[in-house]
Amino acid sequence: MSHESFNPPTRLLMGPGPINADPRVLRAMSAQLIGQYDPAMTACMNETQALYREVFRTQNDATLLIDGTSRAGIEAVLVSLIEPGDRVLVPVFGRFGHLLREIAERAGAEVHIIEVEWGEVFTPEQVETALRDVRPKVLAMVQGDTSTTMCQPLEAIGQICRDHDVLFYTDATASLAGNTLDTDAWQLDAVTAGLQKCLAGPSGSAPTTLSPRAVECIRARAHVEAGLVGNGYDGGRGERIRSNYFDLGMILDYWGEARLNHHTEATSMLYGARECARLLVNEGMEQAVARHALHGGALTEGLKAMGLALFGDQAHRMNNVVGIYIPDGVEGEVLRRTLLEDYAIEIGTSFGPLHGKIWRIGTMGYNARRDTVMTTLAALEQVLRQAGVNMTAGSGAGAAREFYQQNPERTHA
Amino acid sequence: MSHESFNPPTRLLMGPGPINADPRVLRAMSAQLIGQYDPAMTACMNETQALYREVFRTQNDATLLIDGTSRAGIEAVLVSLIEPGDRVLVPVFGRFGHLLREIAERAGAEVHIIEVEWGEVFTPEQVETALRDVRPKVLAMVQGDTSTTMCQPLEAIGQICRDHDVLFYTDATASLAGNTLDTDAWQLDAVTAGLQKCLAGPSGSAPTTLSPRAVECIRARAHVEAGLVGNGYDGGRGERIRSNYFDLGMILDYWGEARLNHHTEATSMLYGARECARLLVNEGMEQAVARHALHGGALTEGLKAMGLALFGDQAHRMNNVVGIYIPDGVEGEVLRRTLLEDYAIEIGTSFGPLHGKIWRIGTMGYNARRDTVMTTLAALEQVLRQAGVNMTAGSGAGAAREFYQQNPERTHA
Repeated sequence: MSHESFNPPTRLLMGPGPINADPRVLRAMSAQLIGQYDPAMTACMNETQALYREVFRTQNDATLLIDGTSRAGIEAVLVSLIEPGDRVLVPVFGRFGHLLREIAERAGAEVHIIEVEWGEVFTPEQVETALRDVRPKVLAMVQGDTSTTMCQPLEAIGQICRDHDVLFYTDATASLAGNTLDTDAWQLDAVTAGLQKCLAGPSGSAPTTLSPRAVECIRARAHVEAGLVGNGYDGGRGERIRSNYFDLGMILDYWGEARLNHHTEATSMLYGARECARLLVNEGMEQAVARHALHGGALTEGLKAMGLALFGDQAHRMNNVVGIYIPDGVEGEVLRRTLLEDYAIEIGTSFGPLHGKIWRIGTMGYNARRDTVMTTLAALEQVLRQAGVNMTAGSGAGAAREFYQQNPERTHA
Repeated sequence: MSHESFNPPTRLLMGPGPINADPRVLRAMSAQLIGQYDPAMTACMNETQALYREVFRTQNDATLLIDGTSRAGIEAVLVSLIEPGDRVLVPVFGRFGHLLREIAERAGAEVHIIEVEWGEVFTPEQVETALRDVRPKVLAMVQGDTSTTMCQPLEAIGQICRDHDVLFYTDATASLAGNTLDTDAWQLDAVTAGLQKCLAGPSGSAPTTLSPRAVECIRARAHVEAGLVGNGYDGGRGERIRSNYFDLGMILDYWGEARLNHHTEATSMLYGARECARLLVNEGMEQAVARHALHGGALTEGLKAMGLALFGDQAHRMNNVVGIYIPDGVEGEVLRRTLLEDYAIEIGTSFGPLHGKIWRIGTMGYNARRDTVMTTLAALEQVLRQAGVNMTAGSGAGAAREFYQQNPERTHA
């Protein structure tokens, strides 16, 4: 029996991510491989680091890729910063806060959480009060949690962390490039992301940046490790990083001048990650955020005009994803299936307390475009009407069109 | 400033891997993305699992991909099987044995090693004696160690492990598809690999298979975890797996019918991994091994005819890579650079005790071809002569040609 190549069906991915990759990213990934220590390869790695410094808005020398999905970046940061018994504070406002908690626990941390209802975010005062109570080594906080569509304001929290001598880590997987993130100005010590949301690439590489304070913390553990023999304990000065694959000390030396032979670079993913950053930097990070705000805004106006109710605190919603309540009497999963089968459009379901209650629609990365918004609204009107929902014909597309007229798209190179 | 796309130089990668990817694999990776729970996506995942069962020659239901480089597969297996304090035996015959040791130590194992000189392999008796002494939970052993080019015979060791109730794990990254590996017949409990060697793809996905015994061990830990609250200890029944990303219990449920939302699949790498397996299965695994033996044999005969001395026990060399001593008076790194600059051919340096003493030349995956062998020998003759090494003109290419005449290439579909 001869097996056939996989030929994926055409889909318009308008869920919370992954979304369709920019064709330029896929083309970049189709380039032939070169050797790991070829001068052209190390130059490509250096260029990729420089591009991601612009994406993260940072001067951090320690800006690099972790070879894995976005949660590989999360785990690399947490397992490298945390020694067993360290206290970590995780403010949880959705599913991915629980993920940070779970990963930190497995790294051996004593994890404390504070929670708000899904659909809300924290005030700086709530975070500072908890920091005073818990006195953690690390504050780990999601920026944009796709499970709730909320975007946690971070700009005031960096200074609070410095005042309390706490390392400040954020998971920006869902938010980066669609919402402002200013690593240095906000005094973030570690940020991780993925390619599959607003970066317009496939999952499989986790861009990561570390402040000098974070690097110092990691290097101190590496220093301890160098003197170790056997099982990694050294009577209290700290424990060896529990993972080889995620040991950021070694990964820093792999990306740095030492060129430590840590792993064999996932070269095609490197090519893709470089192209994702290149497209954003050429566009300009502010312009990329504005693009997500524009198309997310048009979609949202259309949904509201169709009579759909939005989920959560709209003042703190990510630009790139919106939650809408499933109308009474509509089977959420049946409608999603119809949308996929009849229109090849995918929108998102939801998790945990929101499962069965809301859909999530994304406009991000390559799919933050006028035609994707208009097409999705038109198709959604058809399937909602078929499901028995009454609305004025053309109300969604009309409202989006009006929004675009009032907010003309800026063009860029 | 507008940044340019990366345009890698053309290279013929004849080192120990990574090698040039098969263009069909790169084309497969350039397909557009689809959603994580799209029926076409889950079908693609199921097909990929079925194809890798053929690659690994196994009936193991638990056959899947780990999203990361080959050492991600190693760490996933070791951290999921090993509980802190478990004894692990690692027979070390090169650099990658030390890597298994290091990863197992970080997972909390009490690691015992036995060693042979680089360039040799172990007898089953040596392994059995050590098993009796150490009484480990896991035997972790590299099949092909590119650092020495040796291929450890494994076929007799599985039964020894069963006799001693030991789980048998092998890292087949460098050897799979270029040398026989028979997971079920050899009673292997866990095997991991990568795409960047004989599988003809890029690094970034780690095909992995687990026997029912290995799955039972992992599931037992997952069972314990379900009842845990807090920091993961439960008074002796076992410790929670120390990694979320590498928790094979969760990854099994992601690939299995539960479709647990563990991570966002690295879809482009999945496409690539599926194509690597498809090409091998259509060729036939035996035929693929024969192809590596043919072209590796031709290269080796050519090198010998040029007067170069081969490194290590040739009876136990991998088909796909050969070590040659750097001739007296030749600067190894200078010659490698000349070969790269003048001919765009990359051959490998070496590590540890062999650094500066041998080069390593690979014929694997897409580069296990007649033209790559002939071109490499022709170029090597030129740069060696330039470096002052005397040889009969045309001796290498002539010997390879003769070898090909005596061993005609079998064609396949």
